[in-house]
Amino acid sequence: MNKRPLILVTNDDGITAPGIRTLIQIMNKVGEVIVVAPDSPQSGKGHSITLDSTIYCQKIENTDGPQVEYSCSGTPADCVKLAKGQILDRKIDLCVSGINHGLNSSISVVYSGTMSAAIEAGIEGIPSIGFSLDDHSWKANFDNLEESILKIVNGVLDNKMQEGVVLNVNFPKIEKGEKFEGIKVCRQAKGNWIEEFEKRKHPLGRDYYWMTGKFENQDKGTDTDQWALDNKYISVVPIKFDLTDHSYIKHVNNWGL
Amino acid sequence: MNKRPLILVTNDDGITAPGIRTLIQIMNKVGEVIVVAPDSPQSGKGHSITLDSTIYCQKIENTDGPQVEYSCSGTPADCVKLAKGQILDRKIDLCVSGINHGLNSSISVVYSGTMSAAIEAGIEGIPSIGFSLDDHSWKANFDNLEESILKIVNGVLDNKMQEGVVLNVNFPKIEKGEKFEGIKVCRQAKGNWIEEFEKRKHPLGRDYYWMTGKFENQDKGTDTDQWALDNKYISVVPIKFDLTDHSYIKHVNNWGL
Repeated sequence: MNKRPLILVTNDDGITAPGIRTLIQIMNKVGEVIVVAPDSPQSGKGHSITLDSTIYCQKIENTDGPQVEYSCSGTPADCVKLAKGQILDRKIDLCVSGINHGLNSSISVVYSGTMSAAIEAGIEGIPSIGFSLDDHSWKANFDNLEESILKIVNGVLDNKMQEGVVLNVNFPKIEKGEKFEGIKVCRQAKGNWIEEFEKRKHPLGRDYYWMTGKFENQDKGTDTDQWALDNKYISVVPIKFDLTDHSYIKHVNNWGL
Repeated sequence: MNKRPLILVTNDDGITAPGIRTLIQIMNKVGEVIVVAPDSPQSGKGHSITLDSTIYCQKIENTDGPQVEYSCSGTPADCVKLAKGQILDRKIDLCVSGINHGLNSSISVVYSGTMSAAIEAGIEGIPSIGFSLDDHSWKANFDNLEESILKIVNGVLDNKMQEGVVLNVNFPKIEKGEKFEGIKVCRQAKGNWIEEFEKRKHPLGRDYYWMTGKFENQDKGTDTDQWALDNKYISVVPIKFDLTDHSYIKHVNNWGL
């Protein structure tokens, strides 16, 4: 029997975000879809999990397709844990997270709620992909992403992506009528965010800060996600969650600790 | 002039936790110490940053040493960003995070606030180390850690640890009178948390969950942090924040995307 794959869809912008609504519709064409997503925006939440407080999770009604949906008070990583540990009793064949409103390329992968959900699924042995678009607007145009998303999803399913690998997919913003240059498999560009803190005064006198930042790409390579996006390619970075710097073990061994 | 190094101390258990108070005292022997740490516990916060709300950060008084201390309403990663971008105008020579009340070995590194602070410092180009002890208790015994911490800190400073590397150091719990077997440089063990969700009812009727979990080590290797800890060694894992699975790029390239 050729059963349709069971696909878990989540995100970090919240279950009502246009990005996830688009992704749900695309995934309905591929398999049986379960949505477990945060009830409110969770951007920048990294791989946060909810240990010290309660988590609410309830089934909600939807009118836009056959998918089954749960709205959850927790973080993106919580959603994946709940889906696997509590909601579903069948094996999840694929987890997709996004489509994020805003890029998660280069170092942003470590701050990203979208990617933390995908990584959490990877940790739990589920093939998984995070999708992000270079447009923060709630009115971002997701119309032209379907073909590429289906290609990448089918690539993962057909090729049985190795356990321990998660794909970080980012789409450049293109104007109406423009086309993507193609899909590029890349490495994560070396770069970081330079923060600026805007100091303000609370009406009652106490200082507080707003954090803002500007991404700085320190990588001149043409094999990076940042280069691909700058040149209107869709970037695909295979990532892993074994953070060990294996090549540096021998150096530390020479320190004589 | 042989100036004493400027050391940033932070953690995720909050600025009053016995673990960080111990680490501050040890670091006072090595250099000039600035503490920027969360005003409340932030365990499991992963690499969360505060983008959508305000951050308070204020200088506080202390009576236990020459260090200068700031208490911050943000996450561990926020603390490092604030220290570098707002509080300090001198180069930070070293960042140490911890000592965490509880292990951050194996996959726990991705959920850990302690390690996210250390990784954030690494991203910002600061040599950095996260320290954790296998004891969740507020009354954990940190007395016997000083010698090893100084050895590792001096190892990093003397050997000018390569940029892009961060050390994840975990201490096994040993009984009074026992000694550590030594320090082992390791790789991150393959393992994951198996979650259980305890479902309860709110007094007004709505279901909610508590997340609990049990770590499962799937790694039989004797070169892992988990093996080291199980055998009473202090584990040191050099980690990196380039998450690219470089060896898998060629496989994805064969998918014909």
